[in-house]
Amino acid sequence: MVNRINSESSESAPLVVVGSVAFDNVITPHGSKDGILGGAASYCSFAASYFTEPRMVGVIGNDFGDEYLSRLKNRGIDLEGLQRDDTGPTFFWKGKYHENFNRRDTLDIQLNVFENFRPDLPDNYLDSKFVLLGNIHPSLQMHVLDQLHGDSFVVADTIDLWIETERNALLELIKRVSLFVINDSEAEELTGESNIILAGTKLRTMGPQSVIIKKGEHGAMLFHEEGNFALPAYPVTELRDPTGAGDSFAGALIGRLASRNRMDFHAIKEAILYGTCTASLTVEAFGCDRLESAGCAAIEDRVTELKKFISLD
Amino acid sequence: MVNRINSESSESAPLVVVGSVAFDNVITPHGSKDGILGGAASYCSFAASYFTEPRMVGVIGNDFGDEYLSRLKNRGIDLEGLQRDDTGPTFFWKGKYHENFNRRDTLDIQLNVFENFRPDLPDNYLDSKFVLLGNIHPSLQMHVLDQLHGDSFVVADTIDLWIETERNALLELIKRVSLFVINDSEAEELTGESNIILAGTKLRTMGPQSVIIKKGEHGAMLFHEEGNFALPAYPVTELRDPTGAGDSFAGALIGRLASRNRMDFHAIKEAILYGTCTASLTVEAFGCDRLESAGCAAIEDRVTELKKFISLD
Repeated sequence: MVNRINSESSESAPLVVVGSVAFDNVITPHGSKDGILGGAASYCSFAASYFTEPRMVGVIGNDFGDEYLSRLKNRGIDLEGLQRDDTGPTFFWKGKYHENFNRRDTLDIQLNVFENFRPDLPDNYLDSKFVLLGNIHPSLQMHVLDQLHGDSFVVADTIDLWIETERNALLELIKRVSLFVINDSEAEELTGESNIILAGTKLRTMGPQSVIIKKGEHGAMLFHEEGNFALPAYPVTELRDPTGAGDSFAGALIGRLASRNRMDFHAIKEAILYGTCTASLTVEAFGCDRLESAGCAAIEDRVTELKKFISLD
Repeated sequence: MVNRINSESSESAPLVVVGSVAFDNVITPHGSKDGILGGAASYCSFAASYFTEPRMVGVIGNDFGDEYLSRLKNRGIDLEGLQRDDTGPTFFWKGKYHENFNRRDTLDIQLNVFENFRPDLPDNYLDSKFVLLGNIHPSLQMHVLDQLHGDSFVVADTIDLWIETERNALLELIKRVSLFVINDSEAEELTGESNIILAGTKLRTMGPQSVIIKKGEHGAMLFHEEGNFALPAYPVTELRDPTGAGDSFAGALIGRLASRNRMDFHAIKEAILYGTCTASLTVEAFGCDRLESAGCAAIEDRVTELKKFISLD
């Protein structure tokens, strides 16, 4: 029995999460670690698993041992959509963070089995009412949307690489997105606006119903037809490894929405709170370690604390 | 009759504001303007004047014409403590902001009559219960505190120059400060902590009862014995000239507190809201222009808007 955070709603709606699964070697100013279970789909699914049972779609290679599968299963993640490709190893990334963590360099990247990945959904995933498209190639993200039956609430993330190399495909994709999640520098790159309010407002005119701009330690901002919303970050003092923070944010956000089967303005604001607090746990250890083991109470305690931190009362 | 924002309290307590009065030449990426009425005391007093009648202490030179005095008088600022020194011109500063306004260079600085300024308070200012020490030399700030009768609620601001050149005097001063206001890069410089939570926590151990760290477009954070508090900035889209934003913030903050004769945690949080919104007006035009002419309703509208912007409801 997997512990999940109870929502007041008894009805949760199915959620599918699509993204990369990777092994990461991470170097930070405070240390380094090799062979970390990573990739957007892993972080997103772990984070979402605190709220609902995510259906995970990705690809693993011939080096992905049972111990890793067990870690995902133990958090109650549905692995029917996780493809195994025995022709090669799992996607590999090696990166190094600079002093203060504000910049990182990719030192090595090996696509391996991810190179031929096609996110075909199992038949019984096609009714997923909530969809999280991790930051994979926009044409793969689009392929997921083309398979789904009916209207879904679609959250999509991206990275600077696709803004620079696949701008048109990305612009097509975001027209079909309900909630587009992007960080501040990417938002500027995509819109040409350095003012975050103007950038968020402009992004909404490009298709997505709403937009979240992530500002790292400075929090996040939501742009929605019913209004805008700003939330400071949870006050982290022990930053160890920022990898996966954005994925954890998005995973917890949509996990919370799916668990309540809600997608309105108020619910999105509340879900940002959960996303922020879940991501704050991720960054306190290398890889998924802290995220995976944190437990529901740690997330709920931080939500309570963050609410107090922003309260005028 | 000067328009002021009504507080629910009928009793306001006297406030004295001490700082520089200057003429500024400002160059921004969008234009430039010469001979702007500036200096910390001007911005602080204009901002405070929306809440109470500030007693302004500073020095002006032989080039400070009646039209400038009228502008201050028209906002109901008490000018008995404003010294005139006819031996030379008013303090002069020329600065240039870089693209995106995140950096500025001082191109010229002429202390003029400010060089011999000594902030001696008129006798009837000595009972000021609220004191705002603008970012002048720490020994001048200390001289103000030495004259006051009784316990006052003291807000002090500083700049990187004093951290670099007058560190010991500054450390002595802040032991006597109730609420120390500093920006994020200065907080790092003074504490050696790049994490803002750690920097704010450490600053409190250095003497001040509470600390506000200003993060510009990312808002402000309060560190107080009853808890911490984070407030996003008011969402400004038309940044014209950031000069005086910090002074406007501090002026409105203490003006609000003085007008309510309160200095508790809840009141400080509410005053930060007013400080943020008042500063957001200042930066929308060169110098004091927008601040001076904004009117109470503009501030109150922004307070309402900012409350909505941060509301989870």
